[in-house]
Amino acid sequence: MGEKIIRINMSTLTASTEPVPSEWAALGGRALTSTVVAKEVPPTCDALGKYNKLVFAPGLLTGTSAANSGRLSAGFKSPLTGGIKESNAGGTSAQNLERLGIKAVIIEGMPKDDKWYSVHINKDGATIKEDSEFVGNGTGNYELIKTVSDRLGKKVGILVIGPAGEFKMAAANISNKDPDGNIRSHGRGGGGAVMGSKRVKYISIDDTDGPGVTIADPEKFKTQARLFAKALLDHPVSGQGLPTYGTNVLINILNEAGGLPTKNFRFGTCDHHEKICGETMHDVIVARGGTPSHGCHAGCIIKCSQIYVDSEGKYITSGFEYETVWGLGAASMIQDLDDIAKIDHVMDDIGIDSIEGAVIISVAMEAGILPWGDGKEAYRLMDEEVRKGTPLGRILGNGAGSVGRAYGLTRIPVVKNQAIPAYDPRSVKGIGITYATSTMGADHTAGYTIATNILKVGGFVDPLSKVGQVELSRNLQIATAAVDSCGLCIFVAFPALDIPECFTAIFEMINARYGGNLDANGVVEFGKYVLKTEHEFNLAAGMSSKDDRLPEFFEEEIPPHNAVWDFSDSEIEEFWKF
Amino acid sequence: MGEKIIRINMSTLTASTEPVPSEWAALGGRALTSTVVAKEVPPTCDALGKYNKLVFAPGLLTGTSAANSGRLSAGFKSPLTGGIKESNAGGTSAQNLERLGIKAVIIEGMPKDDKWYSVHINKDGATIKEDSEFVGNGTGNYELIKTVSDRLGKKVGILVIGPAGEFKMAAANISNKDPDGNIRSHGRGGGGAVMGSKRVKYISIDDTDGPGVTIADPEKFKTQARLFAKALLDHPVSGQGLPTYGTNVLINILNEAGGLPTKNFRFGTCDHHEKICGETMHDVIVARGGTPSHGCHAGCIIKCSQIYVDSEGKYITSGFEYETVWGLGAASMIQDLDDIAKIDHVMDDIGIDSIEGAVIISVAMEAGILPWGDGKEAYRLMDEEVRKGTPLGRILGNGAGSVGRAYGLTRIPVVKNQAIPAYDPRSVKGIGITYATSTMGADHTAGYTIATNILKVGGFVDPLSKVGQVELSRNLQIATAAVDSCGLCIFVAFPALDIPECFTAIFEMINARYGGNLDANGVVEFGKYVLKTEHEFNLAAGMSSKDDRLPEFFEEEIPPHNAVWDFSDSEIEEFWKF
Repeated sequence: MGEKIIRINMSTLTASTEPVPSEWAALGGRALTSTVVAKEVPPTCDALGKYNKLVFAPGLLTGTSAANSGRLSAGFKSPLTGGIKESNAGGTSAQNLERLGIKAVIIEGMPKDDKWYSVHINKDGATIKEDSEFVGNGTGNYELIKTVSDRLGKKVGILVIGPAGEFKMAAANISNKDPDGNIRSHGRGGGGAVMGSKRVKYISIDDTDGPGVTIADPEKFKTQARLFAKALLDHPVSGQGLPTYGTNVLINILNEAGGLPTKNFRFGTCDHHEKICGETMHDVIVARGGTPSHGCHAGCIIKCSQIYVDSEGKYITSGFEYETVWGLGAASMIQDLDDIAKIDHVMDDIGIDSIEGAVIISVAMEAGILPWGDGKEAYRLMDEEVRKGTPLGRILGNGAGSVGRAYGLTRIPVVKNQAIPAYDPRSVKGIGITYATSTMGADHTAGYTIATNILKVGGFVDPLSKVGQVELSRNLQIATAAVDSCGLCIFVAFPALDIPECFTAIFEMINARYGGNLDANGVVEFGKYVLKTEHEFNLAAGMSSKDDRLPEFFEEEIPPHNAVWDFSDSEIEEFWKF
Repeated sequence: MGEKIIRINMSTLTASTEPVPSEWAALGGRALTSTVVAKEVPPTCDALGKYNKLVFAPGLLTGTSAANSGRLSAGFKSPLTGGIKESNAGGTSAQNLERLGIKAVIIEGMPKDDKWYSVHINKDGATIKEDSEFVGNGTGNYELIKTVSDRLGKKVGILVIGPAGEFKMAAANISNKDPDGNIRSHGRGGGGAVMGSKRVKYISIDDTDGPGVTIADPEKFKTQARLFAKALLDHPVSGQGLPTYGTNVLINILNEAGGLPTKNFRFGTCDHHEKICGETMHDVIVARGGTPSHGCHAGCIIKCSQIYVDSEGKYITSGFEYETVWGLGAASMIQDLDDIAKIDHVMDDIGIDSIEGAVIISVAMEAGILPWGDGKEAYRLMDEEVRKGTPLGRILGNGAGSVGRAYGLTRIPVVKNQAIPAYDPRSVKGIGITYATSTMGADHTAGYTIATNILKVGGFVDPLSKVGQVELSRNLQIATAAVDSCGLCIFVAFPALDIPECFTAIFEMINARYGGNLDANGVVEFGKYVLKTEHEFNLAAGMSSKDDRLPEFFEEEIPPHNAVWDFSDSEIEEFWKF
């Protein structure tokens, strides 16, 4: 197939190109990053030390004409959770890598000196350049991406860490240049800190004259890709809800369901939900001449993203997601959508995961660091304290758990030290099982039971009952592990759960691309393999079933349903019995 | 026996007196605190939440005429390690409790409001008083102890937390008023944070008209106590080395052995060791008219403590131990003994464990927060940043691990998140096994192999060889668990290891006190029971064998022996096979 692995050794400052080992040939995206990490990273190693590795892998369908297939997986041992991590994002890097025939980039080792470097990948391989131009001076990701794009060309993919990654903060993300030169993020789990520990400030990926992608059965691929795209457009969630209002359509839906965690998980509804909801966001964007619907990578047809502008029509942010709006708007009680957008912008600019970052602000309010609802001060904390790495910035930049521990709190919404996102686990119990059991720490995307608990996609499981939640979460986590390995956007799961030909199309496109014979059962086995590989890594890293738990404070009732988290240990432990 | 348990419920603000359950009757000190914690505290609970408990228990021999038997155990789930914790100290509280017939004080629950309280224990039981006089204003422990002693009487025992405990910092200790009105500390593991989480600022213990201590066989007790005391005075370590130079006699001994960790564990010897060693300290104290030898509790005949004074003869600090001098003097490279003494004073005053605190300073230097060797700035950090709870103070006050994580370091000398003390585990390998395996996190006292590896007490095991270290550490940890349960100072282990009648006297005194028939084998079984109870708690709290490991950086060679930490996982795991 001509595909290859690029290995960047930061200890020796050498880059090499290797053939793809046969056991990795059928893997991509999350399946590949998790396999490489499990094989090559000692589970108990220091996540910021020389034995950790940072692996980037496009998905199995990336680079093809399959809709929504342009996502890149980043894998590593997480300095936030202490376990394995895969974080995927849109942008341009995945497709550029795939067009270069690169199945994975593995960054390993650590420089012996204090110098910083950039890595440049093109058709001839990779080169490492000493490069401290953008380091230590607070340069934001927006400026770096613009400057490097101006120099190397608009088409060049860029993976970059901001000041947060330079400081090796556990909430630091890796930014991935999007088709407009804006920012998508490998947000969760502190990949930016790992890249910072290896002193790689940014990676450029130039696909000029790359070999491109070969399809084993082009006709079959075309047919299946068409079925797949049609399903995405036909399904009400991926075809209408998300394109119109973005993910922030969920504010009103979760508020209605009593599952919108408000004021650091005290309430399940938020009085000012109308000020921050997707419908309002849509109207504001349209009135100001922004872009209400926008894709995060070439080939996206859901286009749940948007370009949010100020009252003068000037760009503030994009990839402005429900979870960020929730964390700042409901959890932190900031009522001004413009304030929220500006904080989202600055988090992208300094390289802080905008979910962790939003919960950081909420927990900082809990600690009394700033008043509830103070969006201006929240912005200043990110732009000044975190960007400069002041002591307060260090506390914040290291995650919601860091803030909570520094201030002796007990109301710290984290699992495996990763912030719990925008869905209350007491009033939407399936997602609580996902938070508890995911190998990733609290992560809604790992097994998005909101689909079935709230949106009634793939059937319906009563969100307030314990019945069926473990099985639901397990099935979705298995499916998600497979989807994440294809380079597909997780939102293809909505049509895949409801439209049989959509699910079939996914594995048939893989078969057409590689000439294989994957079937529905094979997809499930593939997903299980990924989860088990990750789970074994976590256990070998020192985790146990005791890490598959929600924080103690979820024993409190949450209005309006006065629901509590009431799963026993043994009920949760059923999850891993597959 | 008339002994009783005092239970203080901070949720209901009620105190009650309970009979001693029969299964606790033969327990005291660490055995009792660990048993109560294991029985009554859910292992996975939030250490700062309402389900944790703080247990104080005098030892089995406390209150008797047995030499060096006046130590008090404090037990709780540690907010620093996440595991069980016992931390014992001298002072006056243990003997006061015993004379009141109180076998243990259990503080549980948590106030529903934000008020602070003091607890007062006397012959009639305990009372809880709303009391915020000393809270929130930076009042130091020295001032509080003086003020409360002036009011309630010089003889009253006081247990108190400083500002660090109020802030629930994980390095916060519990101070225990000593016979002179100075400070002894339940230092390690964050007991101050647990007491702070229950919003108890201090506890007074007035033994006036208490029932006193009854001895079942007074004649036998007297005989055995005499043998015991004689052995303590006869042994060269407890009878000469410690009384003359204090624990700080170890600076030159460890420097000579190449096991004095210098500049955050980079070197095994320290060029300026003569400036900070016990011999110099002794001469300075004598020249200035201080007290070179002093006991931490009534009945101590080793008197390894001292009163360190300034050039005008004014009190600076007492209980000025080798580990603190090491951490500030060698690990942090502070060369001025007066600077070190002042930092020790301020740590006692604000209620920071002086071992964790010294390593905090060292790691802060590693992070670039202050220059290596800057004692004045180290003092300021403690006195201003930690005392006031500034953001930097929060980072520091939460322990060496907190500092290291905040600044993205890999050179963080902690095990189970507790700072590694003053003996390098590469050049004194037995102590490395103790650090790795102790239920307490890195703790030299848990199984003080320095005795046999360096001081040739209880035989000799080559410190640079792996041979015999696991067995040595295991035997000493078992013995220590027993000694800690008797209320005895750990230094009685030196004569007990070398002089058979000394070891015999310990269990015979217990037999004489309670009318039992404990023998040598019973002591060993007792120690094993304590360790296993603690270990089971830790496993149930989510720890695994992976937590029994030293940090990655100990793979580096340490001069002068160029020793590395070279135990395999399975070699370490032999420890628990008993």
